[in-house]
Amino acid sequence: MEVEVKFRVVLDEIKEKIEKLGAKLVREEIQEDLYFDVPLPNLLRIRHIVNTGEVILGYKEIKDKRNEEFDEIEVEVGDFDKTREILKRLGFTEDIWVKKHRYVYKLGNVTFELNRVEGLGDFLDIEVISDNVEEAKREIWKVAGMLGLKEEDVEPRLYQELIKGKRVT
Amino acid sequence: MEVEVKFRVVLDEIKEKIEKLGAKLVREEIQEDLYFDVPLPNLLRIRHIVNTGEVILGYKEIKDKRNEEFDEIEVEVGDFDKTREILKRLGFTEDIWVKKHRYVYKLGNVTFELNRVEGLGDFLDIEVISDNVEEAKREIWKVAGMLGLKEEDVEPRLYQELIKGKRVT
Repeated sequence: MEVEVKFRVVLDEIKEKIEKLGAKLVREEIQEDLYFDVPLPNLLRIRHIVNTGEVILGYKEIKDKRNEEFDEIEVEVGDFDKTREILKRLGFTEDIWVKKHRYVYKLGNVTFELNRVEGLGDFLDIEVISDNVEEAKREIWKVAGMLGLKEEDVEPRLYQELIKGKRVT
Repeated sequence: MEVEVKFRVVLDEIKEKIEKLGAKLVREEIQEDLYFDVPLPNLLRIRHIVNTGEVILGYKEIKDKRNEEFDEIEVEVGDFDKTREILKRLGFTEDIWVKKHRYVYKLGNVTFELNRVEGLGDFLDIEVISDNVEEAKREIWKVAGMLGLKEEDVEPRLYQELIKGKRVT
């Protein structure tokens, strides 16, 4: 299980704090995600990592109401457009694009995904892979506290929900 | 458009004839194809090429009643089991396995796919990629004639139909 909590942050400030904690930058990615219209709590997307050329087909099942627990399957695919075409032919409709610049830091078994999301602002996902959700949450909140993040900084909505929300207002 | 005609053959005999025509062996593959239950005329499969380790997600639309014209999209994927799991989670049911040993020969723009299919016997697909179906068929039947193949050697049924046919009798 992928357990993560998403916080609204100011990128430059939080980046400095994460580095001061001793976390190491392991990856930097320009991600362009195309989501397909499958019914929640499921998510289907093709991710194009522009700077590495990788393309990843991803399927997620959201396991809780706060969008913090995910069962995720990802597989690398050889071509974005062909994968997109196969999904379309299978009847899936394209829903929305989410584009972001992501810095990935690691500290022990905690992963920090610091995202500048196009049109939405800056977010930090603190993530732990574990089947013990309670313990994972404790770990996440421990480091969140060290970064000065609080309950009111949590953003429970998915990026695609935020983008759609902006689009209709 | 992928245009192909499938003939029932005796592998060793036809192999020799294909080689005598001057066709070159370009590939030899052990293919294990898992088909999913999508409604005809569409086909969805994951192909594992055992001897090279490649895995290919393939979607086909059959365009004619004799199963000779196909609109095909294929994309390489990084992992068989994860792709299988994503398709299952998306609601696709596994239908049938087709396993074969394939020799691929080329002569000009004609491809010969000589298959020994587990449980079914030997088949030769003569294939031309072209949007001019009539011309492609003429090319196919020209080389078929040179190999001594006739209309009565044609097998219009799909491998998965043949396997299912055997299973219920």
